[in-house]
Amino acid sequence: MHSYSHLSTLLNDILGKEQADLQSLSPKEMYEPMSYIIGLGGKRVRPLLTLIGCDLFGADPQKALNGALAVELFHNFSLIHDDILDNAPLRRGNVTVHEKWNHNIALLSGDGMMVKAFEILSQGEEQHIPTLLRLFSKTGLEVCEGQQLDMNFETQEQVSVEDYLHMITNKTAVLLGCSLQMGAICAAAPLADQAHVYEFGKHVGIAFQILDDILDVYADHDKFGKQVGGDIISNKKTFLLLKAFELADPAQQKNLRALLNDKTISNSDKVSQVTGLYNALQIKDIASREANLHTEIALKHLAEIGADATKKEHLKCFAENLLNRHT
Amino acid sequence: MHSYSHLSTLLNDILGKEQADLQSLSPKEMYEPMSYIIGLGGKRVRPLLTLIGCDLFGADPQKALNGALAVELFHNFSLIHDDILDNAPLRRGNVTVHEKWNHNIALLSGDGMMVKAFEILSQGEEQHIPTLLRLFSKTGLEVCEGQQLDMNFETQEQVSVEDYLHMITNKTAVLLGCSLQMGAICAAAPLADQAHVYEFGKHVGIAFQILDDILDVYADHDKFGKQVGGDIISNKKTFLLLKAFELADPAQQKNLRALLNDKTISNSDKVSQVTGLYNALQIKDIASREANLHTEIALKHLAEIGADATKKEHLKCFAENLLNRHT
Repeated sequence: MHSYSHLSTLLNDILGKEQADLQSLSPKEMYEPMSYIIGLGGKRVRPLLTLIGCDLFGADPQKALNGALAVELFHNFSLIHDDILDNAPLRRGNVTVHEKWNHNIALLSGDGMMVKAFEILSQGEEQHIPTLLRLFSKTGLEVCEGQQLDMNFETQEQVSVEDYLHMITNKTAVLLGCSLQMGAICAAAPLADQAHVYEFGKHVGIAFQILDDILDVYADHDKFGKQVGGDIISNKKTFLLLKAFELADPAQQKNLRALLNDKTISNSDKVSQVTGLYNALQIKDIASREANLHTEIALKHLAEIGADATKKEHLKCFAENLLNRHT
Repeated sequence: MHSYSHLSTLLNDILGKEQADLQSLSPKEMYEPMSYIIGLGGKRVRPLLTLIGCDLFGADPQKALNGALAVELFHNFSLIHDDILDNAPLRRGNVTVHEKWNHNIALLSGDGMMVKAFEILSQGEEQHIPTLLRLFSKTGLEVCEGQQLDMNFETQEQVSVEDYLHMITNKTAVLLGCSLQMGAICAAAPLADQAHVYEFGKHVGIAFQILDDILDVYADHDKFGKQVGGDIISNKKTFLLLKAFELADPAQQKNLRALLNDKTISNSDKVSQVTGLYNALQIKDIASREANLHTEIALKHLAEIGADATKKEHLKCFAENLLNRHT
């Protein structure tokens, strides 16, 4: 249990209300899928960060509710459209919107959900709207760019570790930074503190994604919700794979490439052989160090923030909990 | 030539610059399609209305450039996604984005283009941003709703003329009203005048769409850019068809329904027989009267606006020119 149970309660209330509102709107073909995906749950990390960002600077988190909702709606829009792009059958253990309805409805309800995010943003406190809109729209574009880069990587022969870090920064990390900063904006925090809290969220996001890549290979099978080694089976260009290619000698590179191209190998053999190569190259340690590096950068930014020490400690614990699910 | 050639020049300059900017951005898979669709041209009615709405109230139209760009980008986003939904091969005589690239790229570049519209809006004059955002996001949602209703109509057995008017109001007309009002907001026009200019644009939009339906059947073949009778061939639920169903006696209804369901009839026979039924029911006159009614409502709102009489006359001429392409 983290120290933000009052913020979670506040958030769950407002999300429940939004879900009911969406359910009641017409045309239902457009609004029901929005209500459905919101109802699938999730950790609600992003909107919670918005409330935390506001609370951190001593303001009433109620002031950041519109921002929090906007962030969660934007995130859910991106899930609906990403699931179309990936042709994914399941989301959080339930059928995806395009499977439950169809592609056209998923496309259009996703569009509507994104516009709805901006509409909700427009109904917050007048004075902060221009700043919020600039940050939110800039971040939204970066998220789309990250998704495009991720798609490009599927067919791109050469992807560097640097390319990969750029992609996950856009696709995942900036929205965490943005979520926190939106809360800080609603609290009228000083610009320097806003920048620090953004960087804190961004680097936590990068660390989170790298740890996610590690977890896919090295998770305890019984505790992990997904198939261990799923990224290896699907040849996903993760931090681990790209770093392995970077460090492998010519023979290991050839071996790794052969494993990726082998259409006859069993999944379990592929996972164990690629993992064996990762182990030989100490990829897990290297990836952990990279994640730790970003966690350290995040904490340095947190240290610079001019806010109540206890509140800063709570945010640090929250981030550590988020990252610790991975160990 | 209308009286707005200076505004057209201003607009074309800024659109040309935006097109070049988009072309230079990375990842190119996401930004090139945006540049491509902007480059396909079109009448640029919506962004021109934004500049006109600003000029009408005596302000420098430069103040409305961000709003104009946002409106045009939003419109083009909707074209990219509508073409996916309709599986359309051509747009303005050129291949559609999803045909030129692929569905995933069309989905994602459309998303990015919509976010970009909001980003551009966020870079305008600070004081007007909250009001612009409220109007623009509300309208954007209505446009999505209209598109959903239009999709619903394809399979919906019973569609009334009233349903149809509600659909075209959302899908087409409100964005014209919004475009004008955004200009008026940038000129800091009084709220009552903003409401009138919005209603003016909306009713011109409704008239435009009804005239478009008439034109599809009754256009001079040599002047019309598309196949005459295309809506009849595709069983599109237009104002004409729905009004015909409303007014037809049981025998005519049965005849009309048989024509729509006849899979063996030639296109030209179908067009001529359905048109014959429209003629018997005087549908063209009824539709023209409905369009005129909305033009009259529009003009009443224009008359109420407290702006320079010459400028009002120019706007009236612009709207009449827009509607007259249909005769």
